[in-house]
Amino acid sequence: ITSKQPNVGTTIFTVMSQLAAETGALNLSQGFPNYNCSPKLIELVNHYMQKGMNQYAPMAGIMPLREILAQKTADLYNLHYHPNDEITIVSGCTEAIYATMAAILHKGDEVIVFEPAYDSYVPSIELNGGKAVYVTLTAENDFTINWEVVKSKITERTKAIMLTTPHNPTGKCLTQDDLNKLAEIVRDTNIFIVSDEVYEHIIFDNRQHLSPAMHPELKERTFLCGSFGKTFHTTGWKLGYCLAPKELTAEFRKTHQWITFASPTPMQYAFADFMKDPNNYLSVRAFYEEKRNKFINWLKGSRFTWKPAEGSFFQMVSYNQITDESDYDLAVRWTKEIGVASIPISVFYNERYDNKILRFCFAKDDETLEKAAERLCKL
Amino acid sequence: ITSKQPNVGTTIFTVMSQLAAETGALNLSQGFPNYNCSPKLIELVNHYMQKGMNQYAPMAGIMPLREILAQKTADLYNLHYHPNDEITIVSGCTEAIYATMAAILHKGDEVIVFEPAYDSYVPSIELNGGKAVYVTLTAENDFTINWEVVKSKITERTKAIMLTTPHNPTGKCLTQDDLNKLAEIVRDTNIFIVSDEVYEHIIFDNRQHLSPAMHPELKERTFLCGSFGKTFHTTGWKLGYCLAPKELTAEFRKTHQWITFASPTPMQYAFADFMKDPNNYLSVRAFYEEKRNKFINWLKGSRFTWKPAEGSFFQMVSYNQITDESDYDLAVRWTKEIGVASIPISVFYNERYDNKILRFCFAKDDETLEKAAERLCKL
Ligand SMILES: CSCCC(=O)C(=O)O
Ligand SMILES: CSCCC(=O)C(=O)O
Repeated sequence: ITSKQPNVGTTIFTVMSQLAAETGALNLSQGFPNYNCSPKLIELVNHYMQKGMNQYAPMAGIMPLREILAQKTADLYNLHYHPNDEITIVSGCTEAIYATMAAILHKGDEVIVFEPAYDSYVPSIELNGGKAVYVTLTAENDFTINWEVVKSKITERTKAIMLTTPHNPTGKCLTQDDLNKLAEIVRDTNIFIVSDEVYEHIIFDNRQHLSPAMHPELKERTFLCGSFGKTFHTTGWKLGYCLAPKELTAEFRKTHQWITFASPTPMQYAFADFMKDPNNYLSVRAFYEEKRNKFINWLKGSRFTWKPAEGSFFQMVSYNQITDESDYDLAVRWTKEIGVASIPISVFYNERYDNKILRFCFAKDDETLEKAAERLCKL
Repeated sequence: ITSKQPNVGTTIFTVMSQLAAETGALNLSQGFPNYNCSPKLIELVNHYMQKGMNQYAPMAGIMPLREILAQKTADLYNLHYHPNDEITIVSGCTEAIYATMAAILHKGDEVIVFEPAYDSYVPSIELNGGKAVYVTLTAENDFTINWEVVKSKITERTKAIMLTTPHNPTGKCLTQDDLNKLAEIVRDTNIFIVSDEVYEHIIFDNRQHLSPAMHPELKERTFLCGSFGKTFHTTGWKLGYCLAPKELTAEFRKTHQWITFASPTPMQYAFADFMKDPNNYLSVRAFYEEKRNKFINWLKGSRFTWKPAEGSFFQMVSYNQITDESDYDLAVRWTKEIGVASIPISVFYNERYDNKILRFCFAKDDETLEKAAERLCKL
């Protein structure tokens, strides 16, 4: 068998979570909570299973869930999508991104990708015949985007720009200035925006989540990909969505329908009910801001340095006052030796650029976070 | 946006189910049961959600589910797959087929497809750069495969042969003779077999399910794609799997991990427990055989003709003693006029070949089946 992806191995998330399990380390690597979702949400899934909602959902998702998503997006962002032909429920944001790339990319098309980049972006592009063109962001510039550099990477083959806000692993959030500059760059082109916004509700210090779709010039070209998993502590239910203007959604659904066709029905009904109370998604912001603050606080007195994450449930910390080992080796060694697993952010770079930074997931109970910080403070 | 699939519209299943809903017709079109799954299975999902199994499953699926699948496959078919690196849990058999095509097809590769063909096969091939090469089966030859014709379609670009057993929509099952001839044809080639076996447990009249993988020469080249949805009356949970030798599984997982990454966790744990009692999957055979027999019985006295389905939960019936309308027009008209929705099998053909046959799904409660048959008998 001739591999289409000779260089693809096991994802870093699998590697580190497995290593943590084997060594008994505190697992602050892979991004998932170690506490349960709301009992109410479980009750709702149970209720709908009992009621027999266990057969195929419509290909685009059940209407009540599309409606509540439309309402939320209108209320929070003044952003309007029609449930009928502009909203599609899929099996996680990973599928949303893959189905988008499958829908838009023709052989040889280029997609601009900012690195550090979430690990599925580039394979999604390449498996669909595209080519990733990198814009490299580093700690030195605080991971801010230089839009002149972005502009310089645009060619006749540029089909899309891939964005993430809040960003994984850096936690950075797009600003209004970013959106304005982006709009300027793509004006008079046919370039699409693919925007991964799974952490939209996990955003701190009174920041307002800014989707590219919220810029009036950008909405028409944006595939807004989101997820229920991070917001509702249900990463294992694998439910996500794609919001996009009618014409784009039509093409998106054509690929989604052959990739998974539909997504789990009882969970869709449960979320449709659960989201009727906006507090159920709005409260997650304060919940994670408290966790971030506690974790940071517990790290005080250590030899690490950091800027508090702007969003997401990840905190990056620089360790260059402790050692100059590579982040990868260090993440592995500290998992084994001090019992705290993290993610080395070099793995999010095409050429393994090393900022001497580790990423810690603070979606963990306080006891775990405190214990982890305690161990890290001894270094 | 330049469509990659300009000719793709809404699937026939969505069209007919919607029409049935709008008109209040008895819906014997789309393949899903109108009764609930086992309460025990629901209890198990609920139990595991309560226990907190709501975060990412491992990319390849939870180990207990892979183990029970390995055991079942060994016990029933004397077919051995290692849970560790030869079994992968995915989001439905549709994803299994898509991920397989994504893993094996390079630009210009050909895949032999038997038509009538399930509607996702060809788009899965084409979206991944491949080309479908058709072998057309018709009612005239009782939909049996002429392997000489298959042989004549093989070229240097043939990368795979796509099979379905039991077959949807025809219900036909592969025989030992089919497997022997297939083995002869692919001997000394690198051609893969992609086998869709979602109806493996729904097979009648004491037939033994025969997977291509059960032929000693074919296992090494077969991607065996299956599902939990048809067997356990949970089509809406979207859980399936792919069994394949180590080297093939390695490539399969590389695409699966970017397409959906993982599949719903609580359902995986529930199935792992539920399948410990083989009766929970073995009993489905008698259950559906009874339904098929009843439906056929109730159709006696009508002007339809049929051969009893060998497997699957679909019964094909010929209507050429009643009318010579096209099957598509007829399926739509009868949904509206007599209140019974079916699937016209011409939609499973590339060039809409019309056998004057409709497909009725008998995964419905007895009352629905009897009422539908009553209406059909009046024609
Ligand atoms: C799909 S596993 C990765 C989870 C995650 O989003 C992360 O850890 O970055
Ligand atoms: C994915 S909807 C189609 C269900 C089915 O398998 C069928 O009706 O043939």
